[in-house]
Amino acid sequence: MFDLVFKDAQLRDGFQTFVADLAVAGGTIAAIGTGLAGRREIRAAGKWLLPGFLDVHTHLSLPFAGAVSADDFFTGSRAGAFGGVTTLIDFTAQRPGEGLREGFERRLAEARGRAAIDFSFHACIGREIDRPLADLAWAVETGLTSLKVFMAYSRAGLMQDDAGLFKVMEHCRKAGVLVTVHAENGGLIDFLTDRLLGGTTRPNPRGEPPLGERADALPASSLGIGALPLTRPVYTEVEAISRLGHLARATGAATYIVHVSSGDGATALATARRHGAPLLGETCPQYLYLNDAAFGGERGHDFSCCPPLRAAGQAAGLWAALQAGDLQVVATDHCPFRRADKDRWEGDITRLPMGLPGIETLGPLTLWGGLNRHIPLDTAIRALTAHPARLFGLYPRKGSLQPGADADLVLFDPDRSAELTAAALHMGSDYSPYEGLRGAGWPVMTVSRGEIIVENGRWLGEAGRGQFLARGSAQLDGFLPD
Amino acid sequence: MFDLVFKDAQLRDGFQTFVADLAVAGGTIAAIGTGLAGRREIRAAGKWLLPGFLDVHTHLSLPFAGAVSADDFFTGSRAGAFGGVTTLIDFTAQRPGEGLREGFERRLAEARGRAAIDFSFHACIGREIDRPLADLAWAVETGLTSLKVFMAYSRAGLMQDDAGLFKVMEHCRKAGVLVTVHAENGGLIDFLTDRLLGGTTRPNPRGEPPLGERADALPASSLGIGALPLTRPVYTEVEAISRLGHLARATGAATYIVHVSSGDGATALATARRHGAPLLGETCPQYLYLNDAAFGGERGHDFSCCPPLRAAGQAAGLWAALQAGDLQVVATDHCPFRRADKDRWEGDITRLPMGLPGIETLGPLTLWGGLNRHIPLDTAIRALTAHPARLFGLYPRKGSLQPGADADLVLFDPDRSAELTAAALHMGSDYSPYEGLRGAGWPVMTVSRGEIIVENGRWLGEAGRGQFLARGSAQLDGFLPD
Amino acid sequence: MFDLVFKDAQLRDGFQTFVADLAVAGGTIAAIGTGLAGRREIRAAGKWLLPGFLDVHTHLSLPFAGAVSADDFFTGSRAGAFGGVTTLIDFTAQRPGEGLREGFERRLAEARGRAAIDFSFHACIGREIDRPLADLAWAVETGLTSLKVFMAYSRAGLMQDDAGLFKVMEHCRKAGVLVTVHAENGGLIDFLTDRLLGGTTRPNPRGEPPLGERADALPASSLGIGALPLTRPVYTEVEAISRLGHLARATGAATYIVHVSSGDGATALATARRHGAPLLGETCPQYLYLNDAAFGGERGHDFSCCPPLRAAGQAAGLWAALQAGDLQVVATDHCPFRRADKDRWEGDITRLPMGLPGIETLGPLTLWGGLNRHIPLDTAIRALTAHPARLFGLYPRKGSLQPGADADLVLFDPDRSAELTAAALHMGSDYSPYEGLRGAGWPVMTVSRGEIIVENGRWLGEAGRGQFLARGSAQLDGFLPD
Amino acid sequence: MFDLVFKDAQLRDGFQTFVADLAVAGGTIAAIGTGLAGRREIRAAGKWLLPGFLDVHTHLSLPFAGAVSADDFFTGSRAGAFGGVTTLIDFTAQRPGEGLREGFERRLAEARGRAAIDFSFHACIGREIDRPLADLAWAVETGLTSLKVFMAYSRAGLMQDDAGLFKVMEHCRKAGVLVTVHAENGGLIDFLTDRLLGGTTRPNPRGEPPLGERADALPASSLGIGALPLTRPVYTEVEAISRLGHLARATGAATYIVHVSSGDGATALATARRHGAPLLGETCPQYLYLNDAAFGGERGHDFSCCPPLRAAGQAAGLWAALQAGDLQVVATDHCPFRRADKDRWEGDITRLPMGLPGIETLGPLTLWGGLNRHIPLDTAIRALTAHPARLFGLYPRKGSLQPGADADLVLFDPDRSAELTAAALHMGSDYSPYEGLRGAGWPVMTVSRGEIIVENGRWLGEAGRGQFLARGSAQLDGFLPD
Repeated sequence: MFDLVFKDAQLRDGFQTFVADLAVAGGTIAAIGTGLAGRREIRAAGKWLLPGFLDVHTHLSLPFAGAVSADDFFTGSRAGAFGGVTTLIDFTAQRPGEGLREGFERRLAEARGRAAIDFSFHACIGREIDRPLADLAWAVETGLTSLKVFMAYSRAGLMQDDAGLFKVMEHCRKAGVLVTVHAENGGLIDFLTDRLLGGTTRPNPRGEPPLGERADALPASSLGIGALPLTRPVYTEVEAISRLGHLARATGAATYIVHVSSGDGATALATARRHGAPLLGETCPQYLYLNDAAFGGERGHDFSCCPPLRAAGQAAGLWAALQAGDLQVVATDHCPFRRADKDRWEGDITRLPMGLPGIETLGPLTLWGGLNRHIPLDTAIRALTAHPARLFGLYPRKGSLQPGADADLVLFDPDRSAELTAAALHMGSDYSPYEGLRGAGWPVMTVSRGEIIVENGRWLGEAGRGQFLARGSAQLDGFLPD
Repeated sequence: MFDLVFKDAQLRDGFQTFVADLAVAGGTIAAIGTGLAGRREIRAAGKWLLPGFLDVHTHLSLPFAGAVSADDFFTGSRAGAFGGVTTLIDFTAQRPGEGLREGFERRLAEARGRAAIDFSFHACIGREIDRPLADLAWAVETGLTSLKVFMAYSRAGLMQDDAGLFKVMEHCRKAGVLVTVHAENGGLIDFLTDRLLGGTTRPNPRGEPPLGERADALPASSLGIGALPLTRPVYTEVEAISRLGHLARATGAATYIVHVSSGDGATALATARRHGAPLLGETCPQYLYLNDAAFGGERGHDFSCCPPLRAAGQAAGLWAALQAGDLQVVATDHCPFRRADKDRWEGDITRLPMGLPGIETLGPLTLWGGLNRHIPLDTAIRALTAHPARLFGLYPRKGSLQPGADADLVLFDPDRSAELTAAALHMGSDYSPYEGLRGAGWPVMTVSRGEIIVENGRWLGEAGRGQFLARGSAQLDGFLPD
Repeated sequence: MFDLVFKDAQLRDGFQTFVADLAVAGGTIAAIGTGLAGRREIRAAGKWLLPGFLDVHTHLSLPFAGAVSADDFFTGSRAGAFGGVTTLIDFTAQRPGEGLREGFERRLAEARGRAAIDFSFHACIGREIDRPLADLAWAVETGLTSLKVFMAYSRAGLMQDDAGLFKVMEHCRKAGVLVTVHAENGGLIDFLTDRLLGGTTRPNPRGEPPLGERADALPASSLGIGALPLTRPVYTEVEAISRLGHLARATGAATYIVHVSSGDGATALATARRHGAPLLGETCPQYLYLNDAAFGGERGHDFSCCPPLRAAGQAAGLWAALQAGDLQVVATDHCPFRRADKDRWEGDITRLPMGLPGIETLGPLTLWGGLNRHIPLDTAIRALTAHPARLFGLYPRKGSLQPGADADLVLFDPDRSAELTAAALHMGSDYSPYEGLRGAGWPVMTVSRGEIIVENGRWLGEAGRGQFLARGSAQLDGFLPD
Repeated sequence: MFDLVFKDAQLRDGFQTFVADLAVAGGTIAAIGTGLAGRREIRAAGKWLLPGFLDVHTHLSLPFAGAVSADDFFTGSRAGAFGGVTTLIDFTAQRPGEGLREGFERRLAEARGRAAIDFSFHACIGREIDRPLADLAWAVETGLTSLKVFMAYSRAGLMQDDAGLFKVMEHCRKAGVLVTVHAENGGLIDFLTDRLLGGTTRPNPRGEPPLGERADALPASSLGIGALPLTRPVYTEVEAISRLGHLARATGAATYIVHVSSGDGATALATARRHGAPLLGETCPQYLYLNDAAFGGERGHDFSCCPPLRAAGQAAGLWAALQAGDLQVVATDHCPFRRADKDRWEGDITRLPMGLPGIETLGPLTLWGGLNRHIPLDTAIRALTAHPARLFGLYPRKGSLQPGADADLVLFDPDRSAELTAAALHMGSDYSPYEGLRGAGWPVMTVSRGEIIVENGRWLGEAGRGQFLARGSAQLDGFLPD
């Protein structure tokens, strides 16, 4: 007699699909079979039983441009659970002169007592790398097995130059730490921004329009949020990914590119992989579903994020790269703001909080990609479960349906139709970038370590029940080119 | 309390690997989990539990050049069981003027009462196609969902010309039947054979050596078995595969190429797939492990098969094509002869029985390819289980570990070393083409529908226990190019 | 003092362009320089001076389906001269049992006393090849250094099977003869024709529409000339070219494919070249300028030719292949008929004389391709001059502006606008497939061996002044893949 | 009666080859023909008559690491003439705060009265770009139509970052100036150098060997000149070329990469071109003929140059890129030093004058590449003549055999054998990197504007006869991807 049995569910772990019973005991998966009995039995016929989703890219309680992202570890993780997310990975941050430990302890303190699902952190580092790198052995011991670096944001003190990247990648390869990278060419972005907006290093005192861009004939003042893509054109992403491929091949360091935003960028990543560069990559639902037409609306600045939304044709290349296995993960870059926060910009993109809400809609939007034939359904499932779990050292405890694994489960009803609206969702933003988008398929139950925390849209969990996950090293077998 | 439980086995179905118990009840898989109990429990820790293998290409009791292949449905299926094979697919054959039914009934009668494992047939047709095609609807109803045609063997009345292929492929596409094809350019092979050997249509009365071949300077009489590859050079396979790709694309018919023998052929197949041709393919262990150096030995003619063994470099391309998914299946073309049969040729390759023993060594040789890193281990497993089961309409009943599936299982000990010798094997040949080859990993138990039929090298089954499998249509999802 | 000097012409030989004087003496080019003086001086400033064009694919006085092509060696060669053609290569033909000599002598007799420009022949052979191949040494001695074979037209006794092609190619390689091939899969064409039109071997007595073709729903009787492309779909050309590539690589024989009609076919040719097949190719203006929309008109059957006109998108691939050097030559397949001849078909494509007029418009249409940026202008010029001259063993005597070469010259005015109309042209058809097409650029003078034979649209030559050209072997250096 | 006539020469301009007479009058080519007569006639039968070669990359009188390159404008240009070079392009240089004019006037003064052949300059700029860019219009007017920038050498104040490159490229595109670039990733080179040699920013105080390099186990002190390739590995070139491709595509600026040193670099360039980047490229004889084995000899440091000599396999890719047209030019980077200059380094590569002699051997080594089948002979000729002349705005005045062009000619005897030795050559180095290399083919006469300046190894010219060449814009037609 098991604790909990899902009867006649369609079990889908991204590799196989079949109908069976799944039994939970003691917070873990106990058996998969026929005719299993439990103290509680849930009739799951016609529904999918999936591993709980991982969102490996969130920014909870993140200060940005005078605001703070509008979800903390409780509200953000609860919103995730509503959408089937049972594990999240956020970021630590250092203050000047600190190593990795202090930032970790601060963030751990923020999360403990608040998080409603299990969580971990990537160790984020800025331009100064020697102190952080000295803590790598400690980080691995502590279960922080991934680092985050930036190829942009020089003015925020975050940007690495090529030598810094090379050094970080060499150290991480030796330590068994996965390097994750924000890949945009920051030098070009600063140059294009200054030229367009007239900054202190503005090269063109006569106010000439920028060269090489479609805005040639527009006065800068008329651009509004339209300035954002002009200062971060697709080639700034493509070049950065291509360069990172050369560095990854030279150092041998497995390197994971966050939020690939364009089909062209995904192609650059795929090309580097074909040439032997150990690159991995993630994209986000906003790049799969939205495009830069959104900037043209009355509240175009609500859609601000970095990298920016791209031209309509780019998403097709991202779907194709997921299907081809060149991108392995869908995550959110969840960084919600309220309209009042966005409105403080006064037309200046350098003062605009960048980021979109996402953790709650991650699972449905990705699965809809499978249901609507953008990618095979198994590919969509793996991008939410086994792939992030393996790359971030949590598999098979998370991201699988194997006996012995944590009973983190999502019961998904493929026939339940849904409409995305800010009113119906539970994230901290007071708007949704997908407002009004409809689709078929929605989670009807979320289970975390055997505990039902969401059932039919009701919250049954509690703040602080989430545990910190000390992670192992990336399980790269099968993910990298030969 | 289940009938039979494998405790703590490494379950490997070609998609996932994990340690769990697997329970059998009533001939099917009942549950996978932890702490399962059974009337009989087998300690399987450290061993792999795999779906039973499928050999979808055998020639039992086949008359050929005055001999008959040296295994019948009992001895052949029993030998397969020793090597972990639990399903085989052989071929029917028509006599002149017959449709598909008569041949099927004859072969069914041969198999019934003899076969020790489950079996089915491909419906083989020769040059005359109208009668057979008229039986397609009957064949589908009967569970014969694959047809076999030939691009060579004109003198045996088997060769289709392009119009015939086109017509067969169109009919099969409409009927939901998978076309399987022997792909060699028979016209060129006949021409090269005649020229080399001086046959009745010999074009060159002055006995000139062949052009365009390395044998330019050799007298034909000195060639012996070395004549075989000269009359069937790699390009006769490459051209046939390439042509078939054009026909498959034009007709839209899914087309499965048997016994692809060369890396060049596999590349032609892959290229056609990239251009949208719905081609699928199989290779055989003899092409992965042996090469034409074998013809140089004292008993070189023991290695005769069609297509012939190729130059040493070709196997690498076959492994690569398996890894890339352009070839999906490993099967054997099992057609064993005894040395006395081979010796009747008297130096004339046109009188030599072609074929090699293979069904018993299929599983180990393919898995050794995974263990020795020629291909990922999961790829090797899928090529023996899920892939042939899906392509030939038997999945998930065969080829899976899903609850509800037939309990066809192989317990494989990866640490048990083996040496391939004719003396130790159970096939009808009195020699082994792999004599003396050693490897690590061998089946220690074979289970068919819940019944242990081989255990530690002892035969526990009985003739006639195998059942005819009426097959469904090919499950092509994910196998064909977009 | 030279015989004739073109002053200040833009000399263009397809490799270089510069302004200079060109002097003629004794029928050959004597000097290129500045300040050259002649008994006759022609002010050529602003005009192009080109080598006379070669049309290496004509069918003069060809019997076809009860008619005879409407130009003989005089009218056809004169029409060519109006368009800048100064060399043509037509075909010999054997009667049953003949070798190459008899056919050559018959055609030579037809041409002598008629031809107004220099001429030569390809030796055409049908299904019977032994007698013709026995004459190869004689042919080379006689200057017939190219052979023509067919992969289609089995019912006219012309089609070679693969063994025949292989044998012809081997012999030609050894003899130094260039094989030229009509590359369409005749077996499939016959099958598709019979099925569509209900021929004697019609496989489908119930009148089913053809499978795998867009005509699925049309009754055959309604197709009219639209049946032509349905019986010769693009894949029948693509497959034949691909197969020929395999044979050319196997035999090592340089092989020239006539009238490549589709971009897909050109891609197949290019792919085979990339893989090392020694293939060369020609296309024709009708495939570059026209498409199958022409069949939809009231007199759609006037556009009948084999291969047929293709879908609109295919021409782009032909232009691209010319630019890439995968096709090297533009020639015409000039085979004009009068409307009365075409009208005898009575709706039956098997009784329709196939062919279009072309020799006079070859040069302008090809050069317009350069002027309109479909290909570089130099590519267009080479495809009319140096390339055919080199491949067919006439260079630099023909196709060049080198001192010592025959003074075969075209003075071309790039600013002279022209409209193509049957009334203004001089070919034997009483209609033009290009009726009404306008372009800029037209020949204003044609010179053959130093003699001005056309000047400003006036004919100054005479019948029979053309000489038979004994050709050397193909000059393949630089044309074949490594 | 012409001034000078070459009788019966094989005229070779890289496009066509034929035997004719070539006549010179008034310093220019007057006529090409048969039977031309001159006051002086040179029997040239069996010899090649070529356009004089251009060396578009020389460093005469260049201060470097405390030494000065060992040829000035007289000795360097005279040495070039001995090898068939009749045009050279060197570089200007600015002092801090200067624009382009001052540097130009200084270099012009150095060259005037010294140069023995015609010459021009690329305008070289360092990190400071605003002043120089303000002079672009002046530069174009003056005939300085190419700029040189650096992606390395930060410590010499030369390195541009990506923003600087972008800005320079945009300005040059607008001005019609060709950007030429030294493409190595300077940031990585500095990092690798410091780490290997223990510089001020040396990241590793414990003397660990470098990561990611084959020197892992070597103490830095033992490396000697072997340190050079370790601090400038091939990927520093590959990455820079790849990045430049992204910038060139973004800005639309035609960009010429000097001294591509590796096959991998050439492949990166070719790949960028395939993706539409308007890149052009040059390689040098030292990268085609020498490899890093040279560093292993007793005087390995004599072979020091930047980029360094590469592993033996890399040259094949450079030859292939020349053949494919992805590299268009061979030039020398001529920067000779004497052994005493090289010896001042005392084992410290940062104090070693970098550079090799080359101008005199440019022509023979490149043509030997054609004679020895590394590339087609015409490709070799174009890389020395028409291609550099067109890219640097001198065509057809230089680099052609057209009537009206400057009579800059090389009479080359393909049968004259030569051995390269410092003793026999005329450059300023007292050693030759090719010492002892033998080949067939050597210039026997060099003509500059109609004047014979070298004849059978005797110098007939005089210092100061060379003229400054004001150049037009690059003639890019046919060189760039569509």
